[in-house]
Amino acid sequence: MSPFAAIFVPDDLAGALSDGAWLEAMLDAERALVAAEASAGLVPAEAAAALAGVLRAELYDADALARAGRAAGNPVEPLVRAIRAAAGEEHAGFVHLGATSQDILDTAAMLVARRALGLIDGELGGAADACAHLAEQHRETVMAARTLLQQAVPTTFGYKAAGWLVGVVEARARLAALELPAQLGGAAGTLAALGDDGPEVLHLYAERLGLREPILPWHTRRTPLVDLAGALAGAAGAAAKIGRDVVLLAQTEVAEVSEGDGGGSSTMPHKRNPTNAILADACARHARANAGVLFESAVQEHERAAGAWHAEWHALSTLLAATGGAAAAVRRSVEQLQIDAERMRANILDETLSEAHRLGHNVAAPEDYVGAAGVFVDRALALYRQ
Amino acid sequence: MSPFAAIFVPDDLAGALSDGAWLEAMLDAERALVAAEASAGLVPAEAAAALAGVLRAELYDADALARAGRAAGNPVEPLVRAIRAAAGEEHAGFVHLGATSQDILDTAAMLVARRALGLIDGELGGAADACAHLAEQHRETVMAARTLLQQAVPTTFGYKAAGWLVGVVEARARLAALELPAQLGGAAGTLAALGDDGPEVLHLYAERLGLREPILPWHTRRTPLVDLAGALAGAAGAAAKIGRDVVLLAQTEVAEVSEGDGGGSSTMPHKRNPTNAILADACARHARANAGVLFESAVQEHERAAGAWHAEWHALSTLLAATGGAAAAVRRSVEQLQIDAERMRANILDETLSEAHRLGHNVAAPEDYVGAAGVFVDRALALYRQ
Amino acid sequence: MSPFAAIFVPDDLAGALSDGAWLEAMLDAERALVAAEASAGLVPAEAAAALAGVLRAELYDADALARAGRAAGNPVEPLVRAIRAAAGEEHAGFVHLGATSQDILDTAAMLVARRALGLIDGELGGAADACAHLAEQHRETVMAARTLLQQAVPTTFGYKAAGWLVGVVEARARLAALELPAQLGGAAGTLAALGDDGPEVLHLYAERLGLREPILPWHTRRTPLVDLAGALAGAAGAAAKIGRDVVLLAQTEVAEVSEGDGGGSSTMPHKRNPTNAILADACARHARANAGVLFESAVQEHERAAGAWHAEWHALSTLLAATGGAAAAVRRSVEQLQIDAERMRANILDETLSEAHRLGHNVAAPEDYVGAAGVFVDRALALYRQ
Amino acid sequence: MSPFAAIFVPDDLAGALSDGAWLEAMLDAERALVAAEASAGLVPAEAAAALAGVLRAELYDADALARAGRAAGNPVEPLVRAIRAAAGEEHAGFVHLGATSQDILDTAAMLVARRALGLIDGELGGAADACAHLAEQHRETVMAARTLLQQAVPTTFGYKAAGWLVGVVEARARLAALELPAQLGGAAGTLAALGDDGPEVLHLYAERLGLREPILPWHTRRTPLVDLAGALAGAAGAAAKIGRDVVLLAQTEVAEVSEGDGGGSSTMPHKRNPTNAILADACARHARANAGVLFESAVQEHERAAGAWHAEWHALSTLLAATGGAAAAVRRSVEQLQIDAERMRANILDETLSEAHRLGHNVAAPEDYVGAAGVFVDRALALYRQ
Repeated sequence: MSPFAAIFVPDDLAGALSDGAWLEAMLDAERALVAAEASAGLVPAEAAAALAGVLRAELYDADALARAGRAAGNPVEPLVRAIRAAAGEEHAGFVHLGATSQDILDTAAMLVARRALGLIDGELGGAADACAHLAEQHRETVMAARTLLQQAVPTTFGYKAAGWLVGVVEARARLAALELPAQLGGAAGTLAALGDDGPEVLHLYAERLGLREPILPWHTRRTPLVDLAGALAGAAGAAAKIGRDVVLLAQTEVAEVSEGDGGGSSTMPHKRNPTNAILADACARHARANAGVLFESAVQEHERAAGAWHAEWHALSTLLAATGGAAAAVRRSVEQLQIDAERMRANILDETLSEAHRLGHNVAAPEDYVGAAGVFVDRALALYRQ
Repeated sequence: MSPFAAIFVPDDLAGALSDGAWLEAMLDAERALVAAEASAGLVPAEAAAALAGVLRAELYDADALARAGRAAGNPVEPLVRAIRAAAGEEHAGFVHLGATSQDILDTAAMLVARRALGLIDGELGGAADACAHLAEQHRETVMAARTLLQQAVPTTFGYKAAGWLVGVVEARARLAALELPAQLGGAAGTLAALGDDGPEVLHLYAERLGLREPILPWHTRRTPLVDLAGALAGAAGAAAKIGRDVVLLAQTEVAEVSEGDGGGSSTMPHKRNPTNAILADACARHARANAGVLFESAVQEHERAAGAWHAEWHALSTLLAATGGAAAAVRRSVEQLQIDAERMRANILDETLSEAHRLGHNVAAPEDYVGAAGVFVDRALALYRQ
Repeated sequence: MSPFAAIFVPDDLAGALSDGAWLEAMLDAERALVAAEASAGLVPAEAAAALAGVLRAELYDADALARAGRAAGNPVEPLVRAIRAAAGEEHAGFVHLGATSQDILDTAAMLVARRALGLIDGELGGAADACAHLAEQHRETVMAARTLLQQAVPTTFGYKAAGWLVGVVEARARLAALELPAQLGGAAGTLAALGDDGPEVLHLYAERLGLREPILPWHTRRTPLVDLAGALAGAAGAAAKIGRDVVLLAQTEVAEVSEGDGGGSSTMPHKRNPTNAILADACARHARANAGVLFESAVQEHERAAGAWHAEWHALSTLLAATGGAAAAVRRSVEQLQIDAERMRANILDETLSEAHRLGHNVAAPEDYVGAAGVFVDRALALYRQ
Repeated sequence: MSPFAAIFVPDDLAGALSDGAWLEAMLDAERALVAAEASAGLVPAEAAAALAGVLRAELYDADALARAGRAAGNPVEPLVRAIRAAAGEEHAGFVHLGATSQDILDTAAMLVARRALGLIDGELGGAADACAHLAEQHRETVMAARTLLQQAVPTTFGYKAAGWLVGVVEARARLAALELPAQLGGAAGTLAALGDDGPEVLHLYAERLGLREPILPWHTRRTPLVDLAGALAGAAGAAAKIGRDVVLLAQTEVAEVSEGDGGGSSTMPHKRNPTNAILADACARHARANAGVLFESAVQEHERAAGAWHAEWHALSTLLAATGGAAAAVRRSVEQLQIDAERMRANILDETLSEAHRLGHNVAAPEDYVGAAGVFVDRALALYRQ
């Protein structure tokens, strides 16, 4: 349903969000459950060992599970059936013990998100590095500041890159602050099937998965997804802001930056499309739309939602893909960005400097803005280096 | 990026929206272009014949094109390169003559949409038939009307199904009214490369494709996509409204309808999840979100947008998939819906009838509502039968 | 809650959407109801005459009704109480006879929308006139076409304005095709309280209001609002597309158009902000967001929704205000747009013409594009003049 | 443009978001600027004293400023003109020294948000108190858990209220973590007009306003607004989730809770609409939509955005109003919620307990769930009491 997705989403991220990756994550959750219950004495060691052998992704087919899951409306129900069949009668009863489908799928969502977040952070980190480099290198490169797309007064390109940098640093901080929780609650969230051992199993399960132990199951209290939505849409926005600036600076009539090393086409010497910046913008639109689905779907009924929950899987996966796509595109754009400092200087109209005088700026030339701008460049770089 | 998509989207619709289907559509556009230009005398008959042989989908790989399209930001640029290579030096110059990438992709989008709309309409048609059947069969089945989820006064289930029916009929009418245009404008929308033959080629191109001939190219005037967005989001909403009602009527404490033939599970006799109704709700959320992307992306720069255009492909494809998913789910739900007329009658509280008296209703029993409700049932059925 | 709304919304439209205008519209609905019921013999002529005297807006206070409506969650309930009190014991029983709060509010929404649509259409009409004028005047004004914000090949400003024009013409056609229906269904949509006279009263009621008679009440079948959402968001998009182009063309480094008569400021000779184009963009964002609320709120429960309905009033009103604001801003922008034809010609890079040659354009100078572009300008103007 | 806003928004919050409140906040910013610059020696003490006399809200008219601001596209430009006129020739030059309109409006937005957040937190705090009370009081009140709106296994109402509670506690934590920054950057963000004193003035300005000092100005790096959007939409979602549950539990056929003390209407003994829960749902829809506008508007051009910035004022104000409206409505709903514990117990079907046995729950009666559920209730209450 997503034509030409490879244009937008890096291969590693696409892999991390594939049906296969989701299947792996579901099996990770089932494995952690068995192990936790074995530790708590609810599953015999022998059964646990036997189940380890059937909780392997290569035994199952994600697409077939999706088809089989049409009747139940989720892929866990057929997966558990398949696992039980593979486990044999003796051990089948210890599969998925005390859990409900949503436990496995929500936990899988967090595992998938964690891996994708790592990749997204890598892209954002690369973008930050490149922005920091630009901010440093161009601390003294003067250019016109533009407000409402009109030249205002001079500034430096270092200052502009410093602003991009802080946006990315803040986005990374928001993502790093996310605490992805495990999900385990059983049929109604109370873990009643595990008797008194419920809380202990929840603790061990989360620990094994390296996920946060929640205060109480979050079946229909979707704070974790809402937090992801906000942080990811924010990150996509930070990336798209850079992309927008690059597209504008790369305009034929502005020509202050270009993507690429100038190789371009010998037949189209004047045309060098800022493709990466453009893709960042496109991706951010999908990130926002899918974040919106998660915000909307936070309104869930009783102990399991009839629809809102089911809408989350696609929304989360697409949100992660689109945010990562935006981050990767911007990293590529900024890493290879060619700066035409002479053109930046030359583009500053005389009237722009006159306007600066009118505003009381005590400057004789655009270069006199380096000092004021540089203070902020240094602040941004200090934040980045923390 | 869309985990377990098969749960939500029917196989035929998924096929119609696959990368392969998009590739086919792009080749359809290129083929129509060659043919139109041959008719206009711009492409020699021999070249046209030769090109027909290389404009076949099996010669190209959609995923490889997507990867190759990363640099250009779209899949048409590498496709045209590949076609030209396949065509050989002699005919390469007649490939994609006078066209730009967006011409092919926008036209392909309309072709993909047309096929998907056919499938969606089929699902909605099935849903309408089932609703009409229910409206007729239950013209005299009394039940409680519920406002703000509180019993109000009696009504009939036929009336409720008639309301569903009209919603679906209206949704189909909106979709049927869409006039999908071909796109052909060349580098800047003027078809200048075709000299005086531009308008004639545009006419022939549209005719061959069975698409509407546009007044002028719509590169950055996105009315066709906005129209699709509104009509499809509306259709998804009509489907989800039915789904919502089914979920509510199927609640354990209401138990007036159920999906399926009552087989259910011998171990869970009291539990029969209205899965189809639930999936309709989930799908409609994605339909709305992606319609939103299309509305947002209607604001496009100059003669080709830097990002907004690129965001449309995924949005349109997902919108079609999600709307079709909602329609199919509701069709399945309504086709198999089990109505418990006795329970409907029994659920009407005495107070509900008292309230009716207080409101001046001149009725002695719920059955006395059949007349008033029936007038509207008949109107709905008449509309349906038109 | 909308700071500085007057910046964005024309005074007449703000008035048409004010609390007072909504109150007027609610009373229009109540008046039409009494009149229709009098015609049908359900209300004595004497009572109808007496009620006409108390169904006047100056007798009620919209803000007080809103406060009084907190308990019921809508303003009609306290309004009806107030009308009954004003009518006196003798006639109170004939107030709001057989109707429910939603009947009055939904009908009022259609009346408010109709008046606002008239004003919006006026703004769009003015914008169309101005675009047509530009298209005609600049049929031979050559400029660079820009794809992905890079110069592509030459085109004419007349062609660009023709594209804007068709967008507005199509938007107006969508709005003109809307058929706003009256709403009357009583407690559960069956008009049961009116006995056999229900359909006749519905017919007369709609006729009196000049609204379409619906097939059946649309309490929770929100096609009319979904249709409004799509058409209005589309119109806002058409306006914002023009605004975006104006902002880009007005950039300091492009300087091909400017808003205003060139007076500008003697102290800021180089700065002339395209304020109207900017406001159009801002308004369109709100139009889209509120259209989204209407699409989402189309999923309504049973015979009256618990929340989705209540969200519509603000969404519809803001959608109308924002779309009208966008239309008015664009009208002002385009009406006063200053075109610098020399600059347009001078901005065309030599490489742009070289590129055209490379693409096979048989042209010697930008002026040679006037012909191909002009064909489409003429088509657009013919559509406009229909 | 927002009909009957008083139904949805508490009076104190409406006041905090009024045009007058925004005007006050703009003047607070101008006052802080003069004071900071006086401390830094840029404004003479005498001028500062004189300006204090004219930086008072009663001297200006918010609506007139909005009208006057149409030409500039913002209300600060006419306000500064008016202040300068009031200040007289001698001191006019010290008004707004080194600042740009966006500095004042962005800072005002943070001041308005801070005050509104205080009120919203108060409402959420009240809701949390009420939820905690319910969780404690009903630690042993058994009821059916419902998944996909079907009875699953028993749980307790205390557990459900504990889930609501944690949602609200988390929402408050997100809001409390927001660090609202001051904005001051001058024409292009570098504070160049203040020479070397820029950073010191920024520091003093933020300090005086009690806002965070930003690393660098955030003219077009909208992290603060994106953070607000995420946290507020999340809070609205937490409120709406409670509202949804209340609406569902209050259904005639479920009848486990009701709003109010049972006063209701003697003529409608069976009807008690959960109005507050309904309003929470409606408000949350607007919160989400306006959060979406802020996320979209984070993509801002260069040093001041042409439209995205202008869209923020309405979006932020409406987002705060709607979130506060949702919070207040839920507080009222939960504070007065009547729990019918007997009905909760009675509604549990025999099959529900049978299902529990099938799932391996070692229980004889619904009451046997109190223990497992209670563990989580205690965890939630401990979090709340922290």
